[in-house]
Amino acid sequence: MENFEFLSPTNIIFGRDTENQVGEETKKYSSKILLHYGGGSIKKTGLYDKVIKSLKEANIDFIELSGVKPNPRLSFVYEGIELCRENDIDFILAVGGGSVIDSAKAIAMGVPYDGDVWDFYAGKATPKEVLPIGVILTIAAAGSEASRSSVITNEDGWYKVGLNCDFTRPKFAIMNPELTFTLPPYQTACGVVDIMAHVMERYFTNVPNVDLTDRLCEGTLKAVIENAPIALEEPENYNARAEIMWASTLAHNDLLSTGRIGDFASHKIEHELSALYDVAHGAGLAVIFPAWMRYVYKQNMDKFVQFAVRVWNVDFNFESPERTALEGINRMTDFFKRLGMPITLKELNIPEDKLEEMADKATKSDTFQLGNFVKLNKEDVLNILKLAR
Amino acid sequence: MENFEFLSPTNIIFGRDTENQVGEETKKYSSKILLHYGGGSIKKTGLYDKVIKSLKEANIDFIELSGVKPNPRLSFVYEGIELCRENDIDFILAVGGGSVIDSAKAIAMGVPYDGDVWDFYAGKATPKEVLPIGVILTIAAAGSEASRSSVITNEDGWYKVGLNCDFTRPKFAIMNPELTFTLPPYQTACGVVDIMAHVMERYFTNVPNVDLTDRLCEGTLKAVIENAPIALEEPENYNARAEIMWASTLAHNDLLSTGRIGDFASHKIEHELSALYDVAHGAGLAVIFPAWMRYVYKQNMDKFVQFAVRVWNVDFNFESPERTALEGINRMTDFFKRLGMPITLKELNIPEDKLEEMADKATKSDTFQLGNFVKLNKEDVLNILKLAR
Repeated sequence: MENFEFLSPTNIIFGRDTENQVGEETKKYSSKILLHYGGGSIKKTGLYDKVIKSLKEANIDFIELSGVKPNPRLSFVYEGIELCRENDIDFILAVGGGSVIDSAKAIAMGVPYDGDVWDFYAGKATPKEVLPIGVILTIAAAGSEASRSSVITNEDGWYKVGLNCDFTRPKFAIMNPELTFTLPPYQTACGVVDIMAHVMERYFTNVPNVDLTDRLCEGTLKAVIENAPIALEEPENYNARAEIMWASTLAHNDLLSTGRIGDFASHKIEHELSALYDVAHGAGLAVIFPAWMRYVYKQNMDKFVQFAVRVWNVDFNFESPERTALEGINRMTDFFKRLGMPITLKELNIPEDKLEEMADKATKSDTFQLGNFVKLNKEDVLNILKLAR
Repeated sequence: MENFEFLSPTNIIFGRDTENQVGEETKKYSSKILLHYGGGSIKKTGLYDKVIKSLKEANIDFIELSGVKPNPRLSFVYEGIELCRENDIDFILAVGGGSVIDSAKAIAMGVPYDGDVWDFYAGKATPKEVLPIGVILTIAAAGSEASRSSVITNEDGWYKVGLNCDFTRPKFAIMNPELTFTLPPYQTACGVVDIMAHVMERYFTNVPNVDLTDRLCEGTLKAVIENAPIALEEPENYNARAEIMWASTLAHNDLLSTGRIGDFASHKIEHELSALYDVAHGAGLAVIFPAWMRYVYKQNMDKFVQFAVRVWNVDFNFESPERTALEGINRMTDFFKRLGMPITLKELNIPEDKLEEMADKATKSDTFQLGNFVKLNKEDVLNILKLAR
């Protein structure tokens, strides 16, 4: 087990009707806020009206910035920063999923910073202070509601880049599983794959003697695997939605990383698909993750055998541990398919002649090779993309 | 799943040599502190010298109060409160296990309070503010390093009473598994039982649809079950000690309670043993827990069957789920025995004629019945104690 430091200070307020507490919670930090959200879905569902009512009851002034897109854009972040500065805003309330929260985090870093907020994503500067953020979560997927991560797409060159910054962990996250009832099956499934990917990126480590976090990772995956098909069949099944929603947070708040060294190469490779083709992140991961696994499993077969046995209930094949490992990968791939996810690049309409460009981008922006479980260079990434065809 | 709020803001600093960061961490909160610890063991191991060196390097003044006993006493808490007031102390550094941390928490609540700190434990008042606390953990057991709980024994009547207060969660917990290398086998085993009890008290709930936290509880138990015998055989096995130490925190920081209603009746009944006979808490739990299980398992057999199958790898007996459930309890009892724990009151030399008094005390101090999984009155508690003979 590696040394670690772990602090997850987000106050989780979870359950039915909790969105009505937003005014009261926000009041602890500010009386003039930016209300940040995506399209009109929160108006259709009635969430918007509840939020406004709660904010008004708490005497909180707000300015709205709506229209955050999936794979949130840098240009929109700039707009948010200007708006906050012009109006002396000192708190951002993000109502939505990972894209809205990530956009809010970027704005929160940008407001008190003299330079270009992209400096942080480009690794040219480190945030010293940020505005506090609150969240009402409407999509279980990214885990951004309690994480230190945000991912922004710079349209100038279509670079999709992630940044980790502890200051950006939200102050509170209001999580009512009912708010995810209206999420369509495809988006629900994308969220499930994203959650599973966050766990697996932590799970596949070469650090030995990490039993407790291994068991916690496996348990989180099993709970998601059990409840995802229920949520797809019965979109208004509260308990299934609740299990997935709480899993989304725990998958990415770094509890499951404690003492380990994870491998986020798959996420990075997927970012290139999303940046170039605006593919839904979870769908991209459903394609990339199995290919990555098939490419790297021999590096640490024991871990993949354990994954197969403990997560997918594969019988251990004493004569061929390798078959055990591969059967685990197969079952995961089958599961993604059953959720309605693509499992090949072809299904995503990504042309063969673009693979090299993506491999190039995924490795070039790093001075070092990609990943930890196995270090990948451009050729490795290209091989993985070819396996994913 | 129940609605819940979860906030665990303790900064965990985990791993080798982390005790040398104590000065730097403490400096964030104070420059004049109470250094609180137990007997001389931290001097023997050299930890004391390291702590003093780190505090001095950070220019932190300190006053010492050593001599905290297991099952920490109210009279000593009063002493600590006076000492802090006389010296304008505004931070308490607890170096030790649960007893030292709980004593520190009680002092931290008492200093800014005009009345008697026992008011809080007696339920007559609620803490409004507390001094901040930091921890260097030397025993993996109580989980007090990140919990909101503290347990104090009032010698006037020998009442051992627990209190939950969110303000008392420590600001930081420095956790170096090496500091537990010198812990004797009996204390190590007591700690393991305490950790397992904390998980099981959350696990046995009648709240349905708690898959994720069920899996996390089972995973935590399995990691402890795997590593406890290793730590007993090889006291200086870093990884085994590390797994147990991190499990001790997660078992009691309330993550595993999220969405559930736990049952702490066993802990409460055990407190009567500890209060009257100064029994080591974990040893008392090893006796009480199996008896409690045998007394209540029929109430929600499915949960006990699941416990047997998922935690103890009992084959599900399709013809008799009850045998499955009982085999789980048996394996747990066997495991406690293998750890060198007592499993009967007789082994603890507790006379039969004291059972009634203990049953009386365990139920009388509550206006309601004890427990949630099954509500217990005095007669039930007496029956459990008789089962534990």
